[in-house]
Amino acid sequence: MKLATLSTESGPRAVAVADDGRFVDLNAVDESLPTSVRALLALDDGLSRAAAALATGVAGRRFVAGTVLAPIPDPGKVLCIGLNYRDHAEETNSPIPSEPVVFGKFGNTIRGPEATVTLPKVSEQVDFEAELVVVIGRTGKHVSEADAMSHVAGYMNGNDVSARDWQKGRPGGQWLLGKTPDGFAPTGPYLVTAGGVEDGGAGDPHDWPVKLTLNGAVMQDGCTADFLFNLPQIIAHLTKIMTLEPGDLIFTGTPAGVGAARKPPVWITDGATTEVTIGPLGTLRTRFVAEK
Amino acid sequence: MKLATLSTESGPRAVAVADDGRFVDLNAVDESLPTSVRALLALDDGLSRAAAALATGVAGRRFVAGTVLAPIPDPGKVLCIGLNYRDHAEETNSPIPSEPVVFGKFGNTIRGPEATVTLPKVSEQVDFEAELVVVIGRTGKHVSEADAMSHVAGYMNGNDVSARDWQKGRPGGQWLLGKTPDGFAPTGPYLVTAGGVEDGGAGDPHDWPVKLTLNGAVMQDGCTADFLFNLPQIIAHLTKIMTLEPGDLIFTGTPAGVGAARKPPVWITDGATTEVTIGPLGTLRTRFVAEK
Repeated sequence: MKLATLSTESGPRAVAVADDGRFVDLNAVDESLPTSVRALLALDDGLSRAAAALATGVAGRRFVAGTVLAPIPDPGKVLCIGLNYRDHAEETNSPIPSEPVVFGKFGNTIRGPEATVTLPKVSEQVDFEAELVVVIGRTGKHVSEADAMSHVAGYMNGNDVSARDWQKGRPGGQWLLGKTPDGFAPTGPYLVTAGGVEDGGAGDPHDWPVKLTLNGAVMQDGCTADFLFNLPQIIAHLTKIMTLEPGDLIFTGTPAGVGAARKPPVWITDGATTEVTIGPLGTLRTRFVAEK
Repeated sequence: MKLATLSTESGPRAVAVADDGRFVDLNAVDESLPTSVRALLALDDGLSRAAAALATGVAGRRFVAGTVLAPIPDPGKVLCIGLNYRDHAEETNSPIPSEPVVFGKFGNTIRGPEATVTLPKVSEQVDFEAELVVVIGRTGKHVSEADAMSHVAGYMNGNDVSARDWQKGRPGGQWLLGKTPDGFAPTGPYLVTAGGVEDGGAGDPHDWPVKLTLNGAVMQDGCTADFLFNLPQIIAHLTKIMTLEPGDLIFTGTPAGVGAARKPPVWITDGATTEVTIGPLGTLRTRFVAEK
């Protein structure tokens, strides 16, 4: 099942996507369902009830339209794994990490599909990073690797946009300011729920192609099979010290091909467009414009 | 004026603190006021209306009781400034930074006064950091130093609890995992609003003593006059690349005396208590217990 968030006259609404791409407002069909995807994921039986509401809505042709927002517009945490593909660690002259490298972004970075992202005037080096984004569906602390995948609600395309001149070479060595400028985490177009393909789920996320184009030219063409740390290892590591909650996001790292590692370097400039396409997750298109 | 958040039967409620320490539920006195401090700060005239509701509540002796939570239980961002006192930078053998060092915590770290914080079993080196916490009251991007203080709603005591063995010496050098374990950002007991003392405000925050005791022994005894970067400089720096919103928190760094810099090092252990007392902000007491 594909879930999305629409902007409507009555505010953001959780919707499910019909086979033909049209949207069913879950709360309009079943008033006991919440209006946000994050709150839906927090329900024990939220996904099965959403599937039932989608079927009812499709049967009754109760479709809605609106601007598509990020699937989770209001995540509690945006966690990111750095250097999680060997070829990307190598292209940035970084050691292969012996455990997951973890940094964060704040909610001000979240944008939906078709969003326009502003290039900060204080940066000359804005870069792209195609990333599989994991959406947490169940509260967990000290989650074992064996149990980790049961905490995953689904997956989205993401672009871990990065201002390299704010990420690196600054006092203290912290990446946060280069990673958390407004709009620097486009996600979507929808969340594909976890589970077997035969049940309408996304299937195994550990062998998906990860592709990014910049103005139509392929810049990244990797595969999640090349993760240094797979999803169970990442979730087990994070939950040693923090509780993961429904709606939390984990950006899982990017493969080789980023602009900073090219000779000469390639940066995102005014009017540029990126497209991220990962496995069965559709395509996330983002347009960039210079800050005035 | 002092604002706080109480846990009540009807959920968390924004309250103001009377001179005798009793609480007035702002929404109970003025139904048009929101029930959360964060939402109150987002109103243009929220603080003046809260002051009016406090006066009405005190006159009518309409007091409420409940467990005191963190003043802002649900901040959008928890930004932290590292190495912002020369003596602390020196005691950690860090270079004096040429610009603010910025890192983050997530909302899972927030705890209120009198909270019990769990020491993660995966850390052997949990440390304390007494910090002045700034609460943002007005949305801002590209805020000038001259205008910065008008974006500050008020101040709280904070403890930037830090697991040193997760903060430093790990691949990638990012501090996040050492800073964002569950419960590692106690704040409170209340938020003292900005503005002149003659108007009931906190006064100038740039000359306040910053004190922390561990089990009654003074460990940190600094002063915000020793900031390397003052609040206008910090706010101007952050808003070059991100929008600050009402309810966002900025931990402003810690003075010398942390446990990691002592010989031998001092760590927070099972049953320990810290107390943070900064200027007119009261005392934030936190008890620590080992994770089972």
